[in-house]
Amino acid sequence: MEGKEEDVKLGANKFSERQPIGTAAQDKDYKEPPPAPLFEPGEIKSWSFYRAGIAEFVATFLFLYITILTVMGVKRGATTCATVGIQGIAWAFGGMIFALVYCTAGISGGHINPAVTFGLFLARKLSLTRALFYMIMQCLGAICGAGVVKGFQKGLYETNGGGANVVNPGYTKGSGLGAEIIGTFILVYTVFSATDAKRSARDSHVPILAPLPIGFAVFLVHLATIPITGTGINPARSLGAAVIYNRDHAWDDQWIFWVGPFVGAGLAAIYHQIVIRAIPFKSRS
Amino acid sequence: MEGKEEDVKLGANKFSERQPIGTAAQDKDYKEPPPAPLFEPGEIKSWSFYRAGIAEFVATFLFLYITILTVMGVKRGATTCATVGIQGIAWAFGGMIFALVYCTAGISGGHINPAVTFGLFLARKLSLTRALFYMIMQCLGAICGAGVVKGFQKGLYETNGGGANVVNPGYTKGSGLGAEIIGTFILVYTVFSATDAKRSARDSHVPILAPLPIGFAVFLVHLATIPITGTGINPARSLGAAVIYNRDHAWDDQWIFWVGPFVGAGLAAIYHQIVIRAIPFKSRS
Amino acid sequence: MEGKEEDVKLGANKFSERQPIGTAAQDKDYKEPPPAPLFEPGEIKSWSFYRAGIAEFVATFLFLYITILTVMGVKRGATTCATVGIQGIAWAFGGMIFALVYCTAGISGGHINPAVTFGLFLARKLSLTRALFYMIMQCLGAICGAGVVKGFQKGLYETNGGGANVVNPGYTKGSGLGAEIIGTFILVYTVFSATDAKRSARDSHVPILAPLPIGFAVFLVHLATIPITGTGINPARSLGAAVIYNRDHAWDDQWIFWVGPFVGAGLAAIYHQIVIRAIPFKSRS
Amino acid sequence: MEGKEEDVKLGANKFSERQPIGTAAQDKDYKEPPPAPLFEPGEIKSWSFYRAGIAEFVATFLFLYITILTVMGVKRGATTCATVGIQGIAWAFGGMIFALVYCTAGISGGHINPAVTFGLFLARKLSLTRALFYMIMQCLGAICGAGVVKGFQKGLYETNGGGANVVNPGYTKGSGLGAEIIGTFILVYTVFSATDAKRSARDSHVPILAPLPIGFAVFLVHLATIPITGTGINPARSLGAAVIYNRDHAWDDQWIFWVGPFVGAGLAAIYHQIVIRAIPFKSRS
Repeated sequence: MEGKEEDVKLGANKFSERQPIGTAAQDKDYKEPPPAPLFEPGEIKSWSFYRAGIAEFVATFLFLYITILTVMGVKRGATTCATVGIQGIAWAFGGMIFALVYCTAGISGGHINPAVTFGLFLARKLSLTRALFYMIMQCLGAICGAGVVKGFQKGLYETNGGGANVVNPGYTKGSGLGAEIIGTFILVYTVFSATDAKRSARDSHVPILAPLPIGFAVFLVHLATIPITGTGINPARSLGAAVIYNRDHAWDDQWIFWVGPFVGAGLAAIYHQIVIRAIPFKSRS
Repeated sequence: MEGKEEDVKLGANKFSERQPIGTAAQDKDYKEPPPAPLFEPGEIKSWSFYRAGIAEFVATFLFLYITILTVMGVKRGATTCATVGIQGIAWAFGGMIFALVYCTAGISGGHINPAVTFGLFLARKLSLTRALFYMIMQCLGAICGAGVVKGFQKGLYETNGGGANVVNPGYTKGSGLGAEIIGTFILVYTVFSATDAKRSARDSHVPILAPLPIGFAVFLVHLATIPITGTGINPARSLGAAVIYNRDHAWDDQWIFWVGPFVGAGLAAIYHQIVIRAIPFKSRS
Repeated sequence: MEGKEEDVKLGANKFSERQPIGTAAQDKDYKEPPPAPLFEPGEIKSWSFYRAGIAEFVATFLFLYITILTVMGVKRGATTCATVGIQGIAWAFGGMIFALVYCTAGISGGHINPAVTFGLFLARKLSLTRALFYMIMQCLGAICGAGVVKGFQKGLYETNGGGANVVNPGYTKGSGLGAEIIGTFILVYTVFSATDAKRSARDSHVPILAPLPIGFAVFLVHLATIPITGTGINPARSLGAAVIYNRDHAWDDQWIFWVGPFVGAGLAAIYHQIVIRAIPFKSRS
Repeated sequence: MEGKEEDVKLGANKFSERQPIGTAAQDKDYKEPPPAPLFEPGEIKSWSFYRAGIAEFVATFLFLYITILTVMGVKRGATTCATVGIQGIAWAFGGMIFALVYCTAGISGGHINPAVTFGLFLARKLSLTRALFYMIMQCLGAICGAGVVKGFQKGLYETNGGGANVVNPGYTKGSGLGAEIIGTFILVYTVFSATDAKRSARDSHVPILAPLPIGFAVFLVHLATIPITGTGINPARSLGAAVIYNRDHAWDDQWIFWVGPFVGAGLAAIYHQIVIRAIPFKSRS
């Protein structure tokens, strides 16, 4: 058992590594799953593949419905004070991701975000077929969710900006892009940390909290970057709001909300694979 | 063990399905409980049946007491800013559901909401006798809870709307009904996801978080739809406030807060049974 | 194993009772601990008895320090909007109870509140000696905590009310007393639900969440009753603030913040022992 | 097994100590790890040592980025009301600590704060080499994180105070120092409580919540002491903001945000070692 675990835990020293803090030191066999193939022929014939797509559609639909409706409610108020406020918007985005990841993790993996799908694809956790199918379903769900909000309050939807992401006055497009990159890095890094199979095997109780830090990561990025871009870090959310709002100034900045999240997700995948998980595979394989 | 689990987990690929993410891969026997009979003769002779009804009464009483008192406190403030605010109201509703589901889940199932009882009845999780008994106790508890709040501050209660649900100016009744349907769908879908016996058997650690996402679902729906209807998604809550407030305009919209939640709960039951749980029972039975 | 468990779980029917929802159906032996004796001679000779008292002192000190400082910060702001707001005060009270119960549960039981100690004493969970010792240490800690806040900002402390509990204008003393009774009922009922040894034995994973619903219960009661009395539900907190503030109008209402919480805690103990836990001990012994 | 556990649990009496509340009474062997040596020659040759440093750098970078950006967003708003507010700032600090401790606990221990590193060093949980390396990486990460925020909005960064910690008008330097000492005591005491190896061995399920109370402790201290100093309790955070802001009045008070946190962390280490953990090692060894 010596030398099996090289990590250092919170407040632990080298000699205690055989009794990891934060778990009852259960030594479980750990098998790294093989990388997902790019194309998985059997996959598209299984009901679970389509069910996963439906779950992603419904989750992204509900995500946009609640969050854009909250944004509209805040904009509509006589004063921000008479509404749930900007902080309430951040809770709506983060809270929905928490609840929806909790509900759909067992069905589709609970991505609800093309950038998350992209990051997990880079780490070879799902096939290219599945990744593309998820992204399409997420974008369709997002468009429908924003559409329902517009249906509820058509006039106000347009005058209040429709929840679309744009770089706000006072910030350069570079700042907006940077904010999207770092924001998505935080989200996807949290997803990787929460779902690391190695960690799951070692600390068998850790993953039950997974949806909570993922939702909190979304909340925190919104707290910080709503003043800059309204916060995208989810291309499906940005596309859905833009399609339904459909004004030029929303489309002009749309590329930022695709390039930023994909770059951020890629950096998080690289950081996790190269730095965080480097040792176990070098020294054990 | 091969082929036993067809679901796809967060960041997992087909080959890793035997080692589900989010659990220490314990293969547990899973037995689907038989559907509850419509009438269970022995049930009404057991103390646990009446104890469950008392627990539902007390929980709904406390739910209305805290939430309507919070609403009154916000309306009463010189400015919303000098109170806990609209966001505080959303926390009161969601937080009470979290705490009360936690406290009563082991006694009555912790429904505290006729729409949840209806959804679980459709899924044949409890008998018709029990479902009707729960709904009556929930409505009585809600009326008493709102009554205590009125007793504390009679004059203000009436001038401030008594926490009753009505469709607010600027929204059509159709929007109000739609908001209730989708809002209750989110709540009941979360309840189904959190209490799925199949999931419980597989991910033995998941259910401990059950009250948290359920409470969060209630919080999130309130963030989004307080501006539209004040948010019902719970016919007992709407009825209790209406009975105590007892003005015409509250009664005029009351049907929305029964039809909406019951339709939403029905859709969530259908979605969960037909889409989410479809495969395991087709392919395994 | 048949008939061993008579409770009904969330979404479960009679036939599924042998596979309880929310746990991996581990049948554990359950032994009800005998009631604590009124006087435990050996207790006062053990270091762990005094250590528990020190832990209660420190926890109540930190509780008053953070919460009263937060109240002072809100009162001191030019507008409530430029502070953490009334909702922030509710978070400070609830959050501190969450963190402090988490930290001290293993040392003293994490009461931090004479009403909780009283409720658990009524349920014979601790001896009279220990109950009195805890209450004294809690009151001393509370006085010191409020004293430090006064030391930081003496003038403002007095003009801003010192965080003392009084029945606010517009409410009768009866309403204030009622609010204290129901509020403490919610808190102590949650404590009983979270720490029920029977539940712990059955749902082995439930208790890890115990500090969270307890903290949330405190948060929720504050959301609802800050406008009425500032919310006591903790006689040590009310005494500590009154001693340091030391004005007549704070002392006039002080009895409400002792009678109310003790009555509420007593009712919660009765409800839990008579209603919630009745069956298992009647039918099994 | 008798007498093996002398602690008293929430609502438990002396006789129930063999069945601790809050856990399924698993008697696990408990081995206290030996104190970490001051210098660990092998350590600096291992990749995991440098990986831990990188993880601390990245985490502190992300911590300052999100929190200082949130502070800037609040200061920039036309009114505080139109932003996430002061409470939103407290959530940003506490929430980031929650998410980052969750993500990095398995890699570096998730300190993200020189005061935490110092406290754990005093308890001999890590070597002096590692402690100094962590502190340097934390300070570098903090400087870079604040630098990125300045890069996004240079002019406003300087006029709005750059998120630097200073003792606010109306408070003495003594109050500021006291607030930093008690605030850091709360944080480091929570860290010790959450990661106590003895507790981990006994209550095997407790540690999974560890990042949550640690994050909450940070949130709560911010609620209370933002009006006094803006809240440091993390010398790297104070240094990073001061270096990038670089005005005299920020440097004048800088010592408070190093002396205060280190004294507070030291007191927490003493309290935990002398009072909380005293008995088990006196009576059992």
